Amino acid sequence: MQTDDFHVFDTTLRDGAQREGITYSVADKLAVARLLDQLGVGFIEGGWPGAMPKDTEFFARAADGELALKNAVLVAFGATRKAGVRVEDDPQVRALLDSRASVVTLVAKSDVLHVERALRTTVEENLAMVRDTVAFLRAEGRRVFLDCEHFFDGYKHDPDYGVRVLDAAAEAGADVGVLCDTNGGMLPMGVHDIVTDVRRRAGIRLGIHTQDDTGCAVANTLAAVDAGATHAQGTANGYGERAGNANIFSVLGGLVTKMGMDVLPDGCLGEMQRVSHAIAEIANLAQDTHAPYVGASAFAHKAGLHASAIKVSPELYNHLDPELVGNDQRILVTEMAGRASVELKSRELGVDVTARPDVVSKVVDRVKERESDGWSYEAADASFELLLRDELDGDDAAQPFTVESYRVIVDRREDGAMVSEATVKVVAAGERVISTDEGNGPVNALDRALRKALERVYPRLADLELTDYKVRIMPGKHGTDAVTRVLIETSDGQREWTTVGVHGNVIEASWLALHDAVRYGLLREPLRP
Amino acid sequence: MQTDDFHVFDTTLRDGAQREGITYSVADKLAVARLLDQLGVGFIEGGWPGAMPKDTEFFARAADGELALKNAVLVAFGATRKAGVRVEDDPQVRALLDSRASVVTLVAKSDVLHVERALRTTVEENLAMVRDTVAFLRAEGRRVFLDCEHFFDGYKHDPDYGVRVLDAAAEAGADVGVLCDTNGGMLPMGVHDIVTDVRRRAGIRLGIHTQDDTGCAVANTLAAVDAGATHAQGTANGYGERAGNANIFSVLGGLVTKMGMDVLPDGCLGEMQRVSHAIAEIANLAQDTHAPYVGASAFAHKAGLHASAIKVSPELYNHLDPELVGNDQRILVTEMAGRASVELKSRELGVDVTARPDVVSKVVDRVKERESDGWSYEAADASFELLLRDELDGDDAAQPFTVESYRVIVDRREDGAMVSEATVKVVAAGERVISTDEGNGPVNALDRALRKALERVYPRLADLELTDYKVRIMPGKHGTDAVTRVLIETSDGQREWTTVGVHGNVIEASWLALHDAVRYGLLREPLRP
Repeated sequence: MQTDDFHVFDTTLRDGAQREGITYSVADKLAVARLLDQLGVGFIEGGWPGAMPKDTEFFARAADGELALKNAVLVAFGATRKAGVRVEDDPQVRALLDSRASVVTLVAKSDVLHVERALRTTVEENLAMVRDTVAFLRAEGRRVFLDCEHFFDGYKHDPDYGVRVLDAAAEAGADVGVLCDTNGGMLPMGVHDIVTDVRRRAGIRLGIHTQDDTGCAVANTLAAVDAGATHAQGTANGYGERAGNANIFSVLGGLVTKMGMDVLPDGCLGEMQRVSHAIAEIANLAQDTHAPYVGASAFAHKAGLHASAIKVSPELYNHLDPELVGNDQRILVTEMAGRASVELKSRELGVDVTARPDVVSKVVDRVKERESDGWSYEAADASFELLLRDELDGDDAAQPFTVESYRVIVDRREDGAMVSEATVKVVAAGERVISTDEGNGPVNALDRALRKALERVYPRLADLELTDYKVRIMPGKHGTDAVTRVLIETSDGQREWTTVGVHGNVIEASWLALHDAVRYGLLREPLRP
Repeated sequence: MQTDDFHVFDTTLRDGAQREGITYSVADKLAVARLLDQLGVGFIEGGWPGAMPKDTEFFARAADGELALKNAVLVAFGATRKAGVRVEDDPQVRALLDSRASVVTLVAKSDVLHVERALRTTVEENLAMVRDTVAFLRAEGRRVFLDCEHFFDGYKHDPDYGVRVLDAAAEAGADVGVLCDTNGGMLPMGVHDIVTDVRRRAGIRLGIHTQDDTGCAVANTLAAVDAGATHAQGTANGYGERAGNANIFSVLGGLVTKMGMDVLPDGCLGEMQRVSHAIAEIANLAQDTHAPYVGASAFAHKAGLHASAIKVSPELYNHLDPELVGNDQRILVTEMAGRASVELKSRELGVDVTARPDVVSKVVDRVKERESDGWSYEAADASFELLLRDELDGDDAAQPFTVESYRVIVDRREDGAMVSEATVKVVAAGERVISTDEGNGPVNALDRALRKALERVYPRLADLELTDYKVRIMPGKHGTDAVTRVLIETSDGQREWTTVGVHGNVIEASWLALHDAVRYGLLREPLRP
């Protein structure tokens, strides 16, 4: 658990989920929360229970023990009670209690214009809404943070009203008043001035929440901290509505490596790059390769001007040591890192290849060539192991079966019924088998036909189950010709493994991943039946 | 032509071209320069003549009249003379004269560590190199700006040396000393302090050049201007090495709309969005849809919390009027959508549904129901419009064709060759057509077979092109039964539209999106042929 001195507050799963194109399942949300916890953030805002069925389920499953957080506390988001309604009668407030989250963030209006024109109530009733809701949740033992929506715009309309909202929250027992630049129109100089002024006048700990509409969300957050805010909100990879929220990785990079603030548990900063990539995978968004600190190109040097100089003194040309944030410098160490990671990975798989430098070279070349075609072995350990075995064993590499051909037919009939049928022709244990089966889609049909063909020779194939299937369309090497990358996760009830296939044709890409998945499963069996 | 009071200095074609993956032809460079001129920047740094053959040719063609710039002056980039070489004998300096550019930016070291360890010369010789080269170019009638590389890091090593470099340049006749955060490690507070101090001590006009390694390049640029710099460098879309340079569109947005500085010719700010997209096209990079000011999502609202309020007072929820920068406000229809979003979205599509509350209710219900099945309309405007038309027009809704059935066959033959073939049976204009075609994958085959079936009745289908295809596997409503969501982007050469399809079978999901794409394209035609 983090100390309470500084709050690193992540809202990837609440405000970040407003980004166009993101739709998390409950399982996705649980996975993202675990990654954020590994990064060492202090607070994870998980969603709006009561308002969104998925969020309600997320909090229920978390409270029932599905999340075992080490560093972070889960936070539920909600609004103050409705105008003219008793707080105990507001079902939305009730849902916050039902979420069982120990910390609640309440959003409140702090701009007179929004109170009058959007909320259509009086400035006094709005203060009462804040006071009542905070007090109610405090009486139920919850810790409360208040998100002051449109705080900075409101300050310009009436510099006193926002302070009154903060004071109302403080008197009712709230811990933090978060100043939100909801429309994202601020610049750092203005944020610094306003936070400095409000800090002098309001009797509550201040937090900062920014949006990136001026391209200054990270700088605005750091400026607020410089002016005395001790609670900073952000989202993974800056996901959020419109131009997004403050990117929490850039905020953490700035706080820890530039401002010297020790806001993460020991060793956690080095997780940034991995966590950033993993969350992008779950969100199914391409990682921004040029993202500060965590992008694949963040420390890549191209300028001829620099390359020779970098060899002499790398510190002269990098703003920090890439390893601090789990990244690496590409220009100098690509080849070596390639060899080192292949050796490391092989050892992890139980094979010592240090005595076989020829194999290491071949594997490095093979991986590089395939990666330039769109393959990725980062998540596909099982496909990497098969590639390694093929290079190690050459023609002796175990091939539990060989494939002659396959065919898939997908039919939508006149009555709207869908039929997917696959035929595979394989040779296993010297025997040629032709098998056809149906499935609920072309890949499922191929999977079933392949197992049916092999199950007599390899009866334990019956334990294998395809547990996840991911597809991504990748821009191809030559611009227009896109390729499809398929990742398949398979389980035999005890272990899980992931395989990858890449091809211009989605069916063939799926087949390649499926083929690796089944071959890998069978290698765990006696190799000759 | 701009006044000289403030320099908007673009280096997309020089420093921005360092971005991994960008390779401009000379024609590309000319096109980018014309776009930047339309945006109204004052200076366009075109490259490094002499060092790069393409840049030499670019300057030659520009000087020969291929660029007819209205607002901007072309600038050549180069380095000070080599250590121990007479300036008139340095071929690289000679190439700057040969470029015929009237303005030259010279890069010089301003950090003692770089002088000693990278340049391997003395601090005095470095000053002489600056003095000699500036004086030489001035004597030849050129205007000279000095880029002080690593200025901010150098200031930390020795706060006086950088000022001595600036003074040497000023004495020799340079107009501007540009403080460069070459490694990009600065934050705005530090930039503000250092620029303020240097401005007091150095006798030359100051400029600012930042890199985005802390995610603060835009803020650092604005902070420097706030502290007195009157020359700001940046690149289109922030292109540049590593995390990139300061995004000139965000810098201009900040200067003009937030800091109230009139740095662009009248009417030019409204060109930003178009210029940003056009340069991304030339660079062959996907536009960042979430870019501040210019991204397609920069003013898109998703939160149900806001949609009703936006209807009342758009200015409460936008940090500026999107039209100022040539952008517009889009409303996303999502699982959080309410009636207000649907009404607003419909109005955006040119349909007023406020008088048809029954239709709004049906559409809201339909969207909610479909979204709980995995559909998403937020990126699929065209599919939403079709859904809206179907509810508005009921049985009279235009159906340019109906589908009886289809079949797809994907074959991997014994020799490894892949064949994808599709057959569709459709009725259009009272005629039943059966058509079969091949493609490089099942979806391409379906697309081709469908167009082949319809092209005789709708000849202008030939203009439609499927420009993007995205697939996402979504966990289904009931846990295990995953569904596939396909988004298809189609263009008719003038407009682009996006459609969505969701189904447990990837082929049917693709077909549904394809069907909407073609139907939408045909609705723009006379409905009955």
